[in-house]
Amino acid sequence: MTFELTILGANAAIPANGRHPSAQYLDVGREAFLIDCGEGTQIQMMNFRIKRSKINHIFISHLHGDHIFGLIGLLMSMSLNNRKTPLHIYSPEGLAPIIQIQIDKPLTYSLHFHTTNPTISEVLYESKTMLVRTIPLVHRAPCHGFLFEEKDRPAQMIKEKIIEYDIPYTAIPAIRQGADYQTVDGQHIPNSELTKAAPKGRKFAYCSDTMYSEAILPLIGGVDVLYHEATFMHDCLEQAKKTMHTTAFQAARIAEQAKVKRLIVGHFSSRYKNLMPLLKEAQDVFEATELAEEGRLVKIGE
Amino acid sequence: MTFELTILGANAAIPANGRHPSAQYLDVGREAFLIDCGEGTQIQMMNFRIKRSKINHIFISHLHGDHIFGLIGLLMSMSLNNRKTPLHIYSPEGLAPIIQIQIDKPLTYSLHFHTTNPTISEVLYESKTMLVRTIPLVHRAPCHGFLFEEKDRPAQMIKEKIIEYDIPYTAIPAIRQGADYQTVDGQHIPNSELTKAAPKGRKFAYCSDTMYSEAILPLIGGVDVLYHEATFMHDCLEQAKKTMHTTAFQAARIAEQAKVKRLIVGHFSSRYKNLMPLLKEAQDVFEATELAEEGRLVKIGE
Repeated sequence: MTFELTILGANAAIPANGRHPSAQYLDVGREAFLIDCGEGTQIQMMNFRIKRSKINHIFISHLHGDHIFGLIGLLMSMSLNNRKTPLHIYSPEGLAPIIQIQIDKPLTYSLHFHTTNPTISEVLYESKTMLVRTIPLVHRAPCHGFLFEEKDRPAQMIKEKIIEYDIPYTAIPAIRQGADYQTVDGQHIPNSELTKAAPKGRKFAYCSDTMYSEAILPLIGGVDVLYHEATFMHDCLEQAKKTMHTTAFQAARIAEQAKVKRLIVGHFSSRYKNLMPLLKEAQDVFEATELAEEGRLVKIGE
Repeated sequence: MTFELTILGANAAIPANGRHPSAQYLDVGREAFLIDCGEGTQIQMMNFRIKRSKINHIFISHLHGDHIFGLIGLLMSMSLNNRKTPLHIYSPEGLAPIIQIQIDKPLTYSLHFHTTNPTISEVLYESKTMLVRTIPLVHRAPCHGFLFEEKDRPAQMIKEKIIEYDIPYTAIPAIRQGADYQTVDGQHIPNSELTKAAPKGRKFAYCSDTMYSEAILPLIGGVDVLYHEATFMHDCLEQAKKTMHTTAFQAARIAEQAKVKRLIVGHFSSRYKNLMPLLKEAQDVFEATELAEEGRLVKIGE
């Protein structure tokens, strides 16, 4: 299954240095999610040839402008494109009136606001293949991240065995769920000979905006990719604490403790034109750190 | 005096084909105006190295999203930059509540909303050098364009005459206003010998969005540059009428009748990836037509 992230915006607060405010697009095959929606998100989607129409669920971490000001434009464009599929938006309380006052003619589709409780981790969405839950964060506004989990898949059939024992198509679902198989001439084949375990479900965690918080470790332990904000470098620790943000050093410490496979840092302060020192600061602690570069495709689990 | 326009966005409704929604930046030397503010305007300003801080007056033609969704982001960024200078926004009724609900912490500067009356032409702003008045337009929402007029300047001194008659600095303002001059030895010098007329004040007219309307002709007659919307080509006349927009042919007809010096067409429908046929359609009627290309600097009066 596809499990690919595209960074649409990676700057904090103000667009600067060619960088845009926060937004990410997560393609999981049949469906796609939008995570935060700063100003210019739909324009970035145009730049990177991402289709608006595939998005049915939008996850908003908190109501600061650099995470939501692109929403109304996107919603209106969907309507101008005559969208019919319902659209769901998940966010802390207060988003609906901000959007509704700006809608100046009825949308062509139904829009559903789902209010989250940022103090606990809750499952927001579940499909056949995916689970999305919140990660409570610590910020100036009620805020949470999101954990996108691919569900563990049933065991896979060993193709040669299907041919060897002439197993009919109808018997396969039960075998994949763990059943043994009895051939037409009565031979008993144990499940272990017929199947191999599917790869574990992949996980992507999105954590922006937040101050350093070890409370998130149990939720993000071992994820394939952790996106964590790193608004400042560690010499600005006081500024980070005051504004309730994280430093690159701290983001790397979180990644290290959570034993994640890869760390992507983003939500950069406008003060950093050159991000290489910030990247180096994180890599000194956690080597598998990368910068959130806009337009970049991140394959989760590879 | 500087009198330069930068096109920031020239697409209609939805950002598409690499084009952004409506916004223009007019630099008139000591001051600068923003005209409409579609989503991504502040990002386009970043791309084209335009300073937010120079803008003290924002003119909004109407309240459709593709002309206003970039406002809140710009206003918040100004505050994050600790702006202190008051900011004035001129628009038809209804903008203030849309903006105010989105401001989540007090701005560092005072914000003043001025409500226009789109049914008449009124002077919105006057400074020592500039006059801004509305141009009533015909659209689905209350809407007007803007006429930016440089005031006629007093006559200019002929430098050689200052030296020839040893005219003191203090006598010059009166001479520039039309006074004659008497030299210390009693010689009378007529004003006509001392001055030459200053170039006429330059004019820029902005007309978006509107259906074809000859009612605007008296207001825009002879302007140096007319920006007029040309959402469609003339084979889509019915669509243009239905949505109350103008075709390229019609925009050129307006320019021709108003005897403007240059016409810039913009607010292009997303259906046009290649704009050359649209340009040709207008040029066949009015040769001095140009496309509103984003990032382009248009020197008014040159």
